[in-house]
Amino acid sequence: MKKGVMRPGHIQIRVLDMDEALKHYVDLLGMIEMDRDAQGRVYLKGWTEVDKFSLVLREADQPGMDFVGFKCVDEVTLDNLQADLQAAGVSTQEIPAEDLKDCGRRIRFTIPTGHSFELFATKKQTGKWGINPRNPEAWPRELKGMKATRFDHCLLYGPNVAASVQLLTQVLGMDLAEQVLDPEGKQLAGFVTVSMKAHDVAFIEHPEPGKLHHASFFLETWNDVLKAADLISMTDTSLDIGPTRHGLTHGQTIYFFDPSGNRNEVFAGGDYHYPDHAPVTWDVEQLGKAIFYHDRQLNERFLTVLT
Amino acid sequence: MKKGVMRPGHIQIRVLDMDEALKHYVDLLGMIEMDRDAQGRVYLKGWTEVDKFSLVLREADQPGMDFVGFKCVDEVTLDNLQADLQAAGVSTQEIPAEDLKDCGRRIRFTIPTGHSFELFATKKQTGKWGINPRNPEAWPRELKGMKATRFDHCLLYGPNVAASVQLLTQVLGMDLAEQVLDPEGKQLAGFVTVSMKAHDVAFIEHPEPGKLHHASFFLETWNDVLKAADLISMTDTSLDIGPTRHGLTHGQTIYFFDPSGNRNEVFAGGDYHYPDHAPVTWDVEQLGKAIFYHDRQLNERFLTVLT
Amino acid sequence: MKKGVMRPGHIQIRVLDMDEALKHYVDLLGMIEMDRDAQGRVYLKGWTEVDKFSLVLREADQPGMDFVGFKCVDEVTLDNLQADLQAAGVSTQEIPAEDLKDCGRRIRFTIPTGHSFELFATKKQTGKWGINPRNPEAWPRELKGMKATRFDHCLLYGPNVAASVQLLTQVLGMDLAEQVLDPEGKQLAGFVTVSMKAHDVAFIEHPEPGKLHHASFFLETWNDVLKAADLISMTDTSLDIGPTRHGLTHGQTIYFFDPSGNRNEVFAGGDYHYPDHAPVTWDVEQLGKAIFYHDRQLNERFLTVLT
Amino acid sequence: MKKGVMRPGHIQIRVLDMDEALKHYVDLLGMIEMDRDAQGRVYLKGWTEVDKFSLVLREADQPGMDFVGFKCVDEVTLDNLQADLQAAGVSTQEIPAEDLKDCGRRIRFTIPTGHSFELFATKKQTGKWGINPRNPEAWPRELKGMKATRFDHCLLYGPNVAASVQLLTQVLGMDLAEQVLDPEGKQLAGFVTVSMKAHDVAFIEHPEPGKLHHASFFLETWNDVLKAADLISMTDTSLDIGPTRHGLTHGQTIYFFDPSGNRNEVFAGGDYHYPDHAPVTWDVEQLGKAIFYHDRQLNERFLTVLT
Repeated sequence: MKKGVMRPGHIQIRVLDMDEALKHYVDLLGMIEMDRDAQGRVYLKGWTEVDKFSLVLREADQPGMDFVGFKCVDEVTLDNLQADLQAAGVSTQEIPAEDLKDCGRRIRFTIPTGHSFELFATKKQTGKWGINPRNPEAWPRELKGMKATRFDHCLLYGPNVAASVQLLTQVLGMDLAEQVLDPEGKQLAGFVTVSMKAHDVAFIEHPEPGKLHHASFFLETWNDVLKAADLISMTDTSLDIGPTRHGLTHGQTIYFFDPSGNRNEVFAGGDYHYPDHAPVTWDVEQLGKAIFYHDRQLNERFLTVLT
Repeated sequence: MKKGVMRPGHIQIRVLDMDEALKHYVDLLGMIEMDRDAQGRVYLKGWTEVDKFSLVLREADQPGMDFVGFKCVDEVTLDNLQADLQAAGVSTQEIPAEDLKDCGRRIRFTIPTGHSFELFATKKQTGKWGINPRNPEAWPRELKGMKATRFDHCLLYGPNVAASVQLLTQVLGMDLAEQVLDPEGKQLAGFVTVSMKAHDVAFIEHPEPGKLHHASFFLETWNDVLKAADLISMTDTSLDIGPTRHGLTHGQTIYFFDPSGNRNEVFAGGDYHYPDHAPVTWDVEQLGKAIFYHDRQLNERFLTVLT
Repeated sequence: MKKGVMRPGHIQIRVLDMDEALKHYVDLLGMIEMDRDAQGRVYLKGWTEVDKFSLVLREADQPGMDFVGFKCVDEVTLDNLQADLQAAGVSTQEIPAEDLKDCGRRIRFTIPTGHSFELFATKKQTGKWGINPRNPEAWPRELKGMKATRFDHCLLYGPNVAASVQLLTQVLGMDLAEQVLDPEGKQLAGFVTVSMKAHDVAFIEHPEPGKLHHASFFLETWNDVLKAADLISMTDTSLDIGPTRHGLTHGQTIYFFDPSGNRNEVFAGGDYHYPDHAPVTWDVEQLGKAIFYHDRQLNERFLTVLT
Repeated sequence: MKKGVMRPGHIQIRVLDMDEALKHYVDLLGMIEMDRDAQGRVYLKGWTEVDKFSLVLREADQPGMDFVGFKCVDEVTLDNLQADLQAAGVSTQEIPAEDLKDCGRRIRFTIPTGHSFELFATKKQTGKWGINPRNPEAWPRELKGMKATRFDHCLLYGPNVAASVQLLTQVLGMDLAEQVLDPEGKQLAGFVTVSMKAHDVAFIEHPEPGKLHHASFFLETWNDVLKAADLISMTDTSLDIGPTRHGLTHGQTIYFFDPSGNRNEVFAGGDYHYPDHAPVTWDVEQLGKAIFYHDRQLNERFLTVLT
């Protein structure tokens, strides 16, 4: 949080059929539907999040991510960061307040991997869902499915990973927590954080720009990862891989797909990061173990994307 | 325990190199080395087992299982069961006491799947390992690796599964806890128990007789399965599949290989069985889910063996 | 199961107010209401139990246990055990079928600690609740509260523990799994099992006969014990002690009270027993640690009852 | 981290006997001994910490805390914060580099509750203990006892809690994450954080200044809290309370004492905080539940201190 960026505050994901998508994100993942807007977008959040929403679903013809937005501490910080971006030669666009319901103005820009990023400082706060703000219980009894606690991060595929990492760290004050290097020292993957989490956004080098590998949601325990896996099976949801552990971040994870083909992750645990931590480095020869710590090899889908 | 058979009491496994095998079973699985004999066989046990040993390793040119032995409540029961086996047309052979060190006489016979089974009633009891028998602590502090608590069961491949199940249930008083049936009702897999466990021995139909699919060891929790998976990776041990859950028995599991190519399982949880429980039945069309509940498909090795 | 007794099949508990009791046992513990009878009794079960019910609640002026019943493998066994009881000088009474709805005849007798015990062999089987009997999922999605899986055992207080243990082991074929002895070798507590569980019924020496210390229900994991504790707090349920571990059996436990003042336990884990296991013995000087392994001292309620 | 303070970097604790203390902190908690100095002080750390040490033990006649130190991002920040402290009327003292071995200069000051606080920016980094910095395994295999991962925070007792909280938040850029208020709105407890953790230091109002309630160390899971409790029992360590959960922060916890009478906590889980989160408030009428969420009442020791 060196320059006032706090966390990934929202992600807008395209889904082919909203009813199917809500069944998936609400009944299976346990996200809470908070609102809808005139465009038909649906706003959701995990129960521990104090802001009104973190996941926006938009019905469209193609799956994927429209944008990911990071929340800053205040509007002044937003102005400063916009200036810093422009000074670094990055074009920015201001999206007016209320374009996303109950959200203030957003500063949008494209990073070198081809993804739409946003900064914002203001969003309606509704508090943690299902528990009293005063003398709060440990958790709400009404949670569904996987009981996802929050939108945590996304993994993005595109070219110029090193340049995107550089922009986020040098201009926006984020930290490089983990990386994968090839024998020549080229950064093939970069895991970037703005606070103690092992990643708030991650990148893997890939020729096509602007790709979403997965949106990730946090669970409390490895036991919850097991139950998530069970629910994936019970609901005939398409599984990618897991339960397993990542080498990078050491999080305990499972990958699966929403009905539109967007990959989701739910995970628990994982390492923590402070600004004085040197980046954790994995060598590309160990990429299999870096991604899937137990199998120590990438499954086909992962390999396909990486070529 | 209708006829006095209590549990799988030991399994003798062939290993290509004893030192490598011990590194695997002692340092990685956490089995305790209890003794060796003049033939060079090594005797091990899990820490919760009161008998002196449950796993016997024998150095040989080929991996696999020599025999699995079931412990009966007393010597009279052993005589009765030998008579019952003979009355059912099964040839029996008596192995004298001390052929296995500190073990009484064993009644050996071959079941229709081609596996060597034994019954015995007497084995030296050394008590649980590492804790005082009086006012016992919850667990010993000196356990290694996966901290396997006991040899639990084995899964055997061979022809005539139904006939083997019938022998064990009708002559030896065991129960059929779970099974896989094809559309004509043929039993392709049978999970047999002598007490509350979901299986003490399991069979899958396979043209070659006498094959060992895996020997299985019990862990306390799903957390221990994760740590087992981590240790498999840290020690560059060959992983088969997991962590995952089985559909059959619903145990939480991981499969991997010892240095000789014998498959091991460590697992936690799973359903319980009583004699008045109808067998749980899975249809062969659901075999993928029955074996690997999350992936819902067999991995290649499993398919190869089944054809 | 030496003589065909399989498990504790039901317990009838007196409650002061049925609506309050159901809120407790159904909404909080997660037992399933299965039926009611003309007397107003309500029949419940845990989801993993194949018999129709295991917990019977009866509205009355005083809390406590009416009786606990053990299920036998068949009606012939029931006749044999009745004869054995009578031969041992124990009076038996036959309660006709359908006195408990969908339950066959029950043989009732009083044990030396003053408790009403029953044997029965026939009860309607409705299968596990909420999952398909064929190709069954791992667990039902509709469970409430603590998700208790089964009625597991009860702990009874009364005089003549040693005589009750002797009756159950010598006449009914049960096993003594664990015990507490005073310096003169008098049995102050006896934990009795009929299968692999560390206890199916337990006794603690106490001057007043026929007392119920607690009825216990099984959970899957230590994580579930934590969530049970959380729910106890959220619902302002009266807590006795826990989460903690017992020394005896080493189960992971929490004690609390139903609205009528009956103590409940929910627990996970714990040791296993086979007929050839010597009883685990705790010395009375270690009673605090034997009961509450972490605190190593009895709380006041426990001490009061023991004097 | 608004003003560059990152985390609690070390705590110096007084112990009556160093050998006993090391047995406790190394063999039981699993902290790693890293070094000793000419004064006889011993330097330890949890295995996940990249700095060389976080816990300093000093032999003395009285137990308690000498000081707690917070690490800042760099030396310039340290100068700035020193100036800010002085501008706020707080006297500061510079302790030269190497007063603590391998640690740079420290700025020491006394906060209104009477505790010695320090800021520093430089300490030798030895990396996580027991794993390779490149392609790191998930955890080291050689950990002992409770496997404490890091020194996490301390809870301090003294007068003027509100003033100490104000100093830390307004001058040093920390956040108030949680608090306990009396009916008049007086702050009786304040939980202060510099990053995502629910607390990096906490205060409870108490007439005597400069008291240490406990030093706390982080564990990975609730399962580890159980094993910590087991180890406390196995080693006859004095238990205060737990395993249980706090209401404040909702962490899963156990309190116990080192051989000198210093209270320790090990805990897992707990809520997270961001700078835009309103402080979580508990009312003093709910103090029992706020501290011990399951028991909902303070044990005697806690009450004694609070009067």
